[in-house]
Amino acid sequence: MSYWHIDYHSKYQALTFEVTESLESIQSPYQKIEVVETPAYGKVLLLDGDLMLTEKDEFAYHEMLVHPTMFTHDHPKKVLIIGGGDCGTLTRVLQHKSTEKVVMVELDELVTKVSKKYFPHLVSSTQDPRVSIIFTDGIKYVHNCTDKYDVILVDSTDPVGPAEGLFRLNFFKDCFKILDEDGILCLQSESPWIPELAELISQVNQNLKSLFPIVKAYGAAIQTYQAGFWLFQIASKKYHPLSAEIERKIIEANLNTKYYNSKIHYAAFILPTFVNKLINETSKNNIE
Amino acid sequence: MSYWHIDYHSKYQALTFEVTESLESIQSPYQKIEVVETPAYGKVLLLDGDLMLTEKDEFAYHEMLVHPTMFTHDHPKKVLIIGGGDCGTLTRVLQHKSTEKVVMVELDELVTKVSKKYFPHLVSSTQDPRVSIIFTDGIKYVHNCTDKYDVILVDSTDPVGPAEGLFRLNFFKDCFKILDEDGILCLQSESPWIPELAELISQVNQNLKSLFPIVKAYGAAIQTYQAGFWLFQIASKKYHPLSAEIERKIIEANLNTKYYNSKIHYAAFILPTFVNKLINETSKNNIE
Repeated sequence: MSYWHIDYHSKYQALTFEVTESLESIQSPYQKIEVVETPAYGKVLLLDGDLMLTEKDEFAYHEMLVHPTMFTHDHPKKVLIIGGGDCGTLTRVLQHKSTEKVVMVELDELVTKVSKKYFPHLVSSTQDPRVSIIFTDGIKYVHNCTDKYDVILVDSTDPVGPAEGLFRLNFFKDCFKILDEDGILCLQSESPWIPELAELISQVNQNLKSLFPIVKAYGAAIQTYQAGFWLFQIASKKYHPLSAEIERKIIEANLNTKYYNSKIHYAAFILPTFVNKLINETSKNNIE
Repeated sequence: MSYWHIDYHSKYQALTFEVTESLESIQSPYQKIEVVETPAYGKVLLLDGDLMLTEKDEFAYHEMLVHPTMFTHDHPKKVLIIGGGDCGTLTRVLQHKSTEKVVMVELDELVTKVSKKYFPHLVSSTQDPRVSIIFTDGIKYVHNCTDKYDVILVDSTDPVGPAEGLFRLNFFKDCFKILDEDGILCLQSESPWIPELAELISQVNQNLKSLFPIVKAYGAAIQTYQAGFWLFQIASKKYHPLSAEIERKIIEANLNTKYYNSKIHYAAFILPTFVNKLINETSKNNIE
């Protein structure tokens, strides 16, 4: 029997869409994991009722989380993914030939198990010999890690519950420590249209700037995420994401993409005036 | 008593938001006009239940409809607005000092009357001596018009009902005829994320290309419109919207804007790969 799911974007607004079938509903130690069938978006993954991924537009989010950073780095061999249990990020990292080793650290093993069943085209990437998956807390993993990485991608849920620490200064400090001297960190950074998130976005930017010499925010149109417009923040020790030579690398790599291209790489960093203002607003206190 | 309004974006998906007060509900000869108070977006104008304008994000739509075209034209003196009864477009046209005459042709006088009461900061622009407002059918007006314009801006509702003709070839032909030899037409062009609109977007592009030498699509993040990402199409007889000298003009004009800026002017024309593909897909038949 069909019903309309409500995905709250704030206390006062929501995306709602028809669900024609509930395919899975299971409680993990961390959250309720559901997969539903929808006419608008195909299969949809919900965590605690929040929309995480849809078959229709997952490409926009995953391509825009992964490719700008992977092309900004000159030779991204060792990549760490924090979160990303659905493996959409992993799949895009593996498109890059330079990738020699990817470690994906996901808190909730059941997210990956469920995704394997319903989004097999994403999770097939886990069979790649370059991939290691560790099911543990990403914050603790990074804190105790003694390896070094070229790239860290933070593919987290919203900053409530377990993911909250992934937006804090201490986590960024640990990331900085395990990044090589030319390493890059990139994290999903929520929607600038939602007032409740404005301060977080600004504070993340400030905290990253207190550690990294190059910090830039960029945006992408993602249909099913809050307000349809999403930010990412890239923090780099050496490489600048707007270097002119990146365009040639993107064209030569000729990746199969539906959102990202050699021109979007640069245009995504050009943000509306209100977003520039929001990001650069100085908060009185960092998030510790 | 508060309730949640549902704004359908297609048969299967909708934006929904809390309404704390119904401020106005009136039936015009053309449509039901409502103004509601919302915690998420401030006052919201609804036409036949469809969200048209919110206090919070109207700037994104209106700035991005008006400014790219007004800055692309070298001396936009005579401007025609089709639709735009809420006067948000008019307000932005009048920010341009070159504007000597603006004719706004709105079908429904009651939309402007209601907007005057609830969005006075937009409708105050009607007092400007450069402005003429004609309440009639924009399609007929353009067909019978003997004046010439530098710029035509089509600020229409969705392509159902009275606005449908504003997306058709015959209307574009009439616009071409009343544009000066260096004139520019720009129209709102719906969301590329909604499959039901994909063919329309592509056909509009094709039809414009059959008339104008320069046709370009660009996008903007508009929170409350379908899927949060909106397209516009600009069709120009002479001036190219990506000319390098436009940047200097934008900086010199120093308009008070919240979305548009000298860099967004160019970046907005860089679209995701799937949108480029959608726009350039050749439809078998033009919309006649």
